[in-house]
Amino acid sequence: MTSTSNRVFIATSMDGYIADRDNKIDWLDTIPEINTIDTGYNAFVERIDAFLFGRGTYETVCGFDIDWPYTKPAYVLSSKLKSGELKFDEHVTYLSGKPTEVLKRIHHNGHHNLYIDGGRVIQDFLRMDLIDEMIITTIPVLLGGGVPLFGELDSKLLFHCIETKHFLNSISQNRFVRVR
Amino acid sequence: MTSTSNRVFIATSMDGYIADRDNKIDWLDTIPEINTIDTGYNAFVERIDAFLFGRGTYETVCGFDIDWPYTKPAYVLSSKLKSGELKFDEHVTYLSGKPTEVLKRIHHNGHHNLYIDGGRVIQDFLRMDLIDEMIITTIPVLLGGGVPLFGELDSKLLFHCIETKHFLNSISQNRFVRVR
Repeated sequence: MTSTSNRVFIATSMDGYIADRDNKIDWLDTIPEINTIDTGYNAFVERIDAFLFGRGTYETVCGFDIDWPYTKPAYVLSSKLKSGELKFDEHVTYLSGKPTEVLKRIHHNGHHNLYIDGGRVIQDFLRMDLIDEMIITTIPVLLGGGVPLFGELDSKLLFHCIETKHFLNSISQNRFVRVR
Repeated sequence: MTSTSNRVFIATSMDGYIADRDNKIDWLDTIPEINTIDTGYNAFVERIDAFLFGRGTYETVCGFDIDWPYTKPAYVLSSKLKSGELKFDEHVTYLSGKPTEVLKRIHHNGHHNLYIDGGRVIQDFLRMDLIDEMIITTIPVLLGGGVPLFGELDSKLLFHCIETKHFLNSISQNRFVRVR
């Protein structure tokens, strides 16, 4: 059987938010130099076969004035959006259904190691214990409210932090892997 | 003028809780070896003059079958407790009032660098921007609910993570200092 993995690479505030109260992410640039250094994103993407985005994350990307920025196949999890509505739709495959069903279809396409992105999707996957690794970059700001990375769980999940990095004397990054 | 500081040294889960849904902290021993190594607690205590505990934290300590474990003067912030009710009361000074008033009285006693402990007190102090440093040890477990370290803030607070440590290949510790 081919091994599979679902991985997260994301930034949060010190208090665990991925967006502020207005759903804005401009605070990610609190330490602007972070955009000029290698935080491991490219190396992370080399380890995955495809992206799986939630609807909100994909809509956010479509709202940016950029070309399609991803170098691997991308899926969008949405029961609401229809292909052709958004500007990057030629680059993505829409899927809907439960996480296990969606994964089965993606694996059937030969994509076994996935970058899972989007607050709602990550929470849904964690609730079903489907996340294997999380690389979390902590932007050293307390927002005091916003969209949390983590949600409620029925039972606790044990990880190990196997790597810690420190950037620009102000930002930390921790790599957590699920211990099963 | 004598310089003052309010510092926090605390452990949280990956999802930012300091106690679980049942107000229990046994998950702090998820990686039991953490209790056998130097995580910097003693060095931290050397840098402070006194402890300021919230009522809940103090009551928790009084519930442990131990001798008084602190080596510096200790204050307890409570408008409810009366001196003489709890087993360690001979070791502490009760105070009540707003954070700034309480700090004024503690500073008047010659204690200028304080260890602030207790979820409620930390949140109250952060809301008034009275915390200068936070050393946060992250236990690599998702609890999925509980008592959060951080609460709501009226405005965001910028820190820098000036030091990152990695213990037992599974636990990270980040030292954040307030940038003013």
